[in-house]
Amino acid sequence: MALVPPHGGGQLKPLLLEGSALDQAKQKAAGLKRVDITSREACDCFMMGIGAFTPLDGFMGKADWQGVCDKMQISTGVFWPIPITCSVGDEEGVSVGDELALYNDEFGGLIALMKVTEKYEIDKKHESKQVFGTDDTEHPGVAKVMEQKKFNIAGPIQVLSEGGFPEEYPGIYAKPVETRAIFEEKGWTRIAAFQTRNPLHRSHEYLCKIAVEIMDGVIIHQILGKLKSGDIPADIRVKAITALTDNYFVKDTIITKGYPMEMRYGGPREALLHAVFRQNFGCSHLIVGRDHAGVGDYYGPFDAQTIFNKLPEGSLEIRTLNIDWTFHCYKCGGMASMKTCPHGKDDRLLLSGTMVRKTLSEGGNLPAEFSRPEVVQILQAYYQGLEEKVEIKLHGHATGDADKK
Amino acid sequence: MALVPPHGGGQLKPLLLEGSALDQAKQKAAGLKRVDITSREACDCFMMGIGAFTPLDGFMGKADWQGVCDKMQISTGVFWPIPITCSVGDEEGVSVGDELALYNDEFGGLIALMKVTEKYEIDKKHESKQVFGTDDTEHPGVAKVMEQKKFNIAGPIQVLSEGGFPEEYPGIYAKPVETRAIFEEKGWTRIAAFQTRNPLHRSHEYLCKIAVEIMDGVIIHQILGKLKSGDIPADIRVKAITALTDNYFVKDTIITKGYPMEMRYGGPREALLHAVFRQNFGCSHLIVGRDHAGVGDYYGPFDAQTIFNKLPEGSLEIRTLNIDWTFHCYKCGGMASMKTCPHGKDDRLLLSGTMVRKTLSEGGNLPAEFSRPEVVQILQAYYQGLEEKVEIKLHGHATGDADKK
Repeated sequence: MALVPPHGGGQLKPLLLEGSALDQAKQKAAGLKRVDITSREACDCFMMGIGAFTPLDGFMGKADWQGVCDKMQISTGVFWPIPITCSVGDEEGVSVGDELALYNDEFGGLIALMKVTEKYEIDKKHESKQVFGTDDTEHPGVAKVMEQKKFNIAGPIQVLSEGGFPEEYPGIYAKPVETRAIFEEKGWTRIAAFQTRNPLHRSHEYLCKIAVEIMDGVIIHQILGKLKSGDIPADIRVKAITALTDNYFVKDTIITKGYPMEMRYGGPREALLHAVFRQNFGCSHLIVGRDHAGVGDYYGPFDAQTIFNKLPEGSLEIRTLNIDWTFHCYKCGGMASMKTCPHGKDDRLLLSGTMVRKTLSEGGNLPAEFSRPEVVQILQAYYQGLEEKVEIKLHGHATGDADKK
Repeated sequence: MALVPPHGGGQLKPLLLEGSALDQAKQKAAGLKRVDITSREACDCFMMGIGAFTPLDGFMGKADWQGVCDKMQISTGVFWPIPITCSVGDEEGVSVGDELALYNDEFGGLIALMKVTEKYEIDKKHESKQVFGTDDTEHPGVAKVMEQKKFNIAGPIQVLSEGGFPEEYPGIYAKPVETRAIFEEKGWTRIAAFQTRNPLHRSHEYLCKIAVEIMDGVIIHQILGKLKSGDIPADIRVKAITALTDNYFVKDTIITKGYPMEMRYGGPREALLHAVFRQNFGCSHLIVGRDHAGVGDYYGPFDAQTIFNKLPEGSLEIRTLNIDWTFHCYKCGGMASMKTCPHGKDDRLLLSGTMVRKTLSEGGNLPAEFSRPEVVQILQAYYQGLEEKVEIKLHGHATGDADKK
């Protein structure tokens, strides 16, 4: 048995330059037109840089954009669920044929070089409706599309940076070639990826453990890019996940890694994108639970599972591991799901996100059936820190330092 | 998606006669030589009768026997792990060309008609070593091979009976064509079979529930044929399993059925046979836990899992769902396995079979973390009944009725 092949059937295609090629490209950048890109666009450069978006070799042209929106295919016929695009306005004065240096100051400046092969306008509402199922700008993914500038520019890129992720997340940040090497070294071929942007409570632990029971191993795969406000920041999440895996998982059944993408909250279509790049990372399966990559009430709780059934044969090599809504049931005497627990609502421990946040920020305890005490402790400290900051601000003593973390 | 095809790639091949063909065959039997067969042989007839042993059309000849022993293949190249044979002695005076009526009085008399195409001697030690990995006659499967008569007879059979199983196990006994119809009606294609000859404790429930979480459904598939002494009788087992599924499983995620085979306790090779006929019953997966179909210390605890990795590609369409040794762990706060629980022996609830039997026969309670109270109640009643029978015997008041159950 071998690892699942990269998406599209060829080799991994990392666009990150190294060594002297990198040095030369940086020198060249100094003489090129500078274009500032958004954090989402920068993160897509990083994903292409490490080969996570194999087989893409740059930002998409109009035909690819249209194909992806309407039939989830780029022009070569390869499956792709969400447009990977870059936009500019009139003010940048970009023309086809230009070579650009793409910058983003949040990520340390120079990100990539790009050769512009196409400049085109899109119907943003069409993209939003096709990809997100809505054009409501309250949806954070739609909002980002709507904020895009007038033109999309397409063309191959060379990536010159990893955006500081390797330094900020040592031991967590990993490229597809690295996770593949880890799997090979461990002799794993059946590997489930667990996508998360949150610390893991017992319901998530249960999803991972079901996968551990029947697979060679599981990768808890955290998104390291920007989240919407209200989500737990990445460093706290990493700490909380480590506390869980150290105390409640068997060594060598699970690894924790992260990738430099920005959430789009695209529900079903984003689940498909998650599957695409997990295949590049060498995973044979993606765990898809309730409301995967969703936000608000835009998606049905299991839309992200059923969408996989509608793909043409051969779209993806990776498979899903679909799991129902999970919780602790006192009558079952353990974790269960709607598929395995026949008991009633009153027998189950169900807490809303709001209730959890309220309890934690008041320094209260979550029941051990909901969250492991080692995890709760870390979250309590985080939420109480937040409260204190708010109080300091209210009393007019806020400092720049207190606002960073 | 469709159900997994029957083994061998063709249609189900049930050898049971029905209607006027059955009546004619019964009349014909009256004029044929009567040969009495063992309960194991009779059960193999029933399995062929319902098509569970598709694509076999009778007892195996020498070439098939040899191929199955040495390379797990019948002469057509189809995968088969355990010889399905019938034996006679000199005293039966059977010759090639004879038509026989096969009888077994434990199963109501007439079982099948057989056309003898071959009569041959075998090396029983060779079969035992190849199939059971030992020729120790303490092994109950080996003992049965060693007790076989001098010659094996081969040839196609017509089956005239279901051995009383449909009447004895209404709602439980089911033919492959019936389980397939149930799966189709439910729209299930991913179905895991759980093999059992025992009532289900929580460790077994956990195996089944892992499968429910990720499959369309699970069939608890009980062996209804003769067991070794000390095993719980089938009627008690059925009651105990029903108590479990009624109270702890979601309706329409699990069905309970049974099949008319006799255990061989062949460990890994029997696990393969279990897979072969589960495929005929329409199952896409077979759950293989610790010491599947084993007895004593003859097999390593996971030999029945690893043997599947050694089969030539295409041997079977059915796949295994391998699960490690499972138990309740107090630190995990639920069921777990060696793969998901990182804690120590002292944190786990581990009871030996001997300890369980002792506790139950003394009317004691098993912890709810080991077995569901509804199940314990049924087993307590059974074991206490046994005790009383022993006492009645010791006092010289045993009656025929008390001995039946």
